[in-house]
Amino acid sequence: MTQTATASDTAAAIAALRAATEAALEAALPPETAWPETIHRAVRYSLFAGGKRIRPVLVLASGEAVGAPRAELLPLACAVEMIHTYSLIHDDLPAMDDDELRRGKPTSHKVFGEAIAILAGDALLTRAFHLLATVPPGVDDALARRRLAATEVLAEGCGTAGLIGGQVMDLESEGRATSAQALERLHRAKTGALLSACVRGGAILGGARPDELAALSRYAAAIGLAFQVVDDVLDATEDAQSLGKTAGKDAAAHKATYVSVHGIERAREMADGLLRDALAAVEPFGPRGALLQALARLVVERHS
Amino acid sequence: MTQTATASDTAAAIAALRAATEAALEAALPPETAWPETIHRAVRYSLFAGGKRIRPVLVLASGEAVGAPRAELLPLACAVEMIHTYSLIHDDLPAMDDDELRRGKPTSHKVFGEAIAILAGDALLTRAFHLLATVPPGVDDALARRRLAATEVLAEGCGTAGLIGGQVMDLESEGRATSAQALERLHRAKTGALLSACVRGGAILGGARPDELAALSRYAAAIGLAFQVVDDVLDATEDAQSLGKTAGKDAAAHKATYVSVHGIERAREMADGLLRDALAAVEPFGPRGALLQALARLVVERHS
Repeated sequence: MTQTATASDTAAAIAALRAATEAALEAALPPETAWPETIHRAVRYSLFAGGKRIRPVLVLASGEAVGAPRAELLPLACAVEMIHTYSLIHDDLPAMDDDELRRGKPTSHKVFGEAIAILAGDALLTRAFHLLATVPPGVDDALARRRLAATEVLAEGCGTAGLIGGQVMDLESEGRATSAQALERLHRAKTGALLSACVRGGAILGGARPDELAALSRYAAAIGLAFQVVDDVLDATEDAQSLGKTAGKDAAAHKATYVSVHGIERAREMADGLLRDALAAVEPFGPRGALLQALARLVVERHS
Repeated sequence: MTQTATASDTAAAIAALRAATEAALEAALPPETAWPETIHRAVRYSLFAGGKRIRPVLVLASGEAVGAPRAELLPLACAVEMIHTYSLIHDDLPAMDDDELRRGKPTSHKVFGEAIAILAGDALLTRAFHLLATVPPGVDDALARRRLAATEVLAEGCGTAGLIGGQVMDLESEGRATSAQALERLHRAKTGALLSACVRGGAILGGARPDELAALSRYAAAIGLAFQVVDDVLDATEDAQSLGKTAGKDAAAHKATYVSVHGIERAREMADGLLRDALAAVEPFGPRGALLQALARLVVERHS
């Protein structure tokens, strides 16, 4: 990547990171024929359902921006996608958001039943940490310790102060009036914490200097919130076919969203402002930050 | 502990390990007042519901048998109890075993609803790995790497080849004839894998030599299977009050158990044989193995 990278260079770079993630995910899971087959079929059904792999790509782009080799970053890239997928499976359950469609396909519990869907989520969460703890013999002490530090950041992002806390708050906010402040807190937890953990975890695993980590943390906070604002705008404006999941659900459930609290125009302006913050945060990286800038644009300008 | 340790010395030693576990668990979780409160109330409700703490005590006894200081073992002790509790919460869900009583109290989903019960399980699993990845600044490289190795063993024990795989097989075996071989495979996964990970994880975290780890692995395999055989005998012979959970459930659900496959007398003989194997495996440890021997007896001779 150079500063004069074309759009097609950027697209090719992202495609390469996606392909590396797919291959690593494939290798990181037991085959469908492993005992007990049902759970491995269910895990693979959801993990390979055509996700956009935004989170692993962020891990790799962040780690490579601070100079780390891709092979050292891939375990974390796989782990974040496994955790994202587990959270989708559990969020879709009848007891939670009760969704029938995800990534354009029937949800896990529709295909495998509730019990296996719960266990498939549990299995993906467990496998993510298993992968991070499995250190090949040749790995030196410094990299082993960076693995632990990145795992800590990831676990915090998907714990009760992050992903899980956000889902709890989301469930509790259904049908209630929500302040703009409470909404931001909810989404910083529910979506922002894991996205932020991807960027910061990639940087830490990649051996970022403190100033690099600080800049990437600012970038992460901006795109984390932008992602949810855009999600809310899409839920209000796109149809199920282009989203690959049920549309208009938030309004139907009387959920507070950026659109219901601020209106569509203001929500779009907020997303644009967050995009500018993200681009500025990685400006000091020069050409090495070009891919992260392209990813921030991708998050804000997507249509599904 | 000496070879002539009395029963009351042993009881006091186990009580001390339990007390250390309670204090460490208390410190390892956010308070009930932390945001969002519901999830922390639910997590604490199940984690402090009067469990016998057999798994953390096994971690500590195993690690101390190879000479490790207790403070280095406590994060793993807490993690295994969190994982055990998460598995109980999820197993009790309506979509799984649909249990209303656990440790003599209403199950999590009865108190908090299904959505929060699912998330409380997720939170405990996540917190377990968070704790293991959080290494205090003073920890040296060798201990950091033993943390990773113990985490790997634990993640394997509670993954699809262990705890989760056993639960899948258990669900699939309901109402079906099961061979003695399939039953043993189910229970080596469902109960044995996590118990074994406690003993082996404690040994690895404690810096066991290869011969020590081999002996403790034999001990772990024997008590893991014995635990489930005894569980099945208790389910068939004790009442709900002494068990603290619904009794006779296995027969009611037409589940294959050691009792239904082998009969009560043969099941009791099997448990005694496994106890002898466990005692023999840690014989080479001399006085340092006395507590592990006492724990094996406790597993086989318990009444709830």
